[in-house]
Amino acid sequence: MKELQARIKQDGQVLGKDVLKVDSFLNHQIDPLLMQRMGEEFYQHFREFPITKILTVESSGIAPAVMTGLAFQKPVVFARKHKSLTLKDDLYVADVYSFTKKTANKISVSRKFLSATDHVLIVDDFLANGQAVAGLTDIIKQADAHLEGIGIVIEKTFQKGRQLIDRQHIPIFSLARIKAFENGQVVFEEE
Amino acid sequence: MKELQARIKQDGQVLGKDVLKVDSFLNHQIDPLLMQRMGEEFYQHFREFPITKILTVESSGIAPAVMTGLAFQKPVVFARKHKSLTLKDDLYVADVYSFTKKTANKISVSRKFLSATDHVLIVDDFLANGQAVAGLTDIIKQADAHLEGIGIVIEKTFQKGRQLIDRQHIPIFSLARIKAFENGQVVFEEE
Repeated sequence: MKELQARIKQDGQVLGKDVLKVDSFLNHQIDPLLMQRMGEEFYQHFREFPITKILTVESSGIAPAVMTGLAFQKPVVFARKHKSLTLKDDLYVADVYSFTKKTANKISVSRKFLSATDHVLIVDDFLANGQAVAGLTDIIKQADAHLEGIGIVIEKTFQKGRQLIDRQHIPIFSLARIKAFENGQVVFEEE
Repeated sequence: MKELQARIKQDGQVLGKDVLKVDSFLNHQIDPLLMQRMGEEFYQHFREFPITKILTVESSGIAPAVMTGLAFQKPVVFARKHKSLTLKDDLYVADVYSFTKKTANKISVSRKFLSATDHVLIVDDFLANGQAVAGLTDIIKQADAHLEGIGIVIEKTFQKGRQLIDRQHIPIFSLARIKAFENGQVVFEEE
């Protein structure tokens, strides 16, 4: 998505070897018009899939997921993050490890909102090591729901998340694919 | 907003004396089309105000705030919640006490995203005791920004949040106003 690439070039901050900060339009301050166009892009890509529900994880996934849900006219569910969680019968629970923050979290989704009849599109802000997607995939399996595809706003192709997904033959579509950070600059994969 | 009242009647769950659970369309699962119409309602009400930014707090405020930002074509900033927070120069920080969860949190906004030139519309999912709004108001003051108004999805008029806001003569607009829960049923204020 050319507009997103341009925005990343303009407003993204490269920190160290593998962190990109986009808190001026996605992760803290949000550009709703860009989010709407991103939702429309995901819809155009996955419109032939029988999607019944969009699944994401709080908090930064919510804005792109809600705009995707708007385009599909389908409900959005966001998994909640917990530092710890005592066993609860009414929740699907999965583990997510954050390499950036070096902390382990649990994420949960109420059993009420995901079932065997659902065809799910995962939407998330970043794909790096794939831990959030793995946690969401785990929850979809627990629900016996069908994972139709994964829509990612920004993918870092040099980290291992993509491999994990490709190995499972899940359709994936990323709006911006970054292959490297060179001298503090973002280098995109050829579109 | 009649549609929201009907949805609350249909899908809301009254828990105990003062808790309303609306996690099937707002707080966990989200109805994006309803969110869009809510954003449009906030826009219609506050369209004459010189709004430059929408401010909310993660996570349940994000969906209505982003749709409000879409209607205004203005950026949205969500305050982050922290269990604790060591002093950081680049953040505005305020305290928020949750009566429901009986926990104290800090919320923060990066100084980059709120300044003296901003005219802010706060959007949040619930107004009960007004603690979240008080924290956001505190942050707006720290930024020397101008608070133009407050848009609330669901207000519980029998709790003290509304009084706190009226005392400060801040324009407030709530899409649904609940005056009581009687026998597990929601009773709305007359519109």
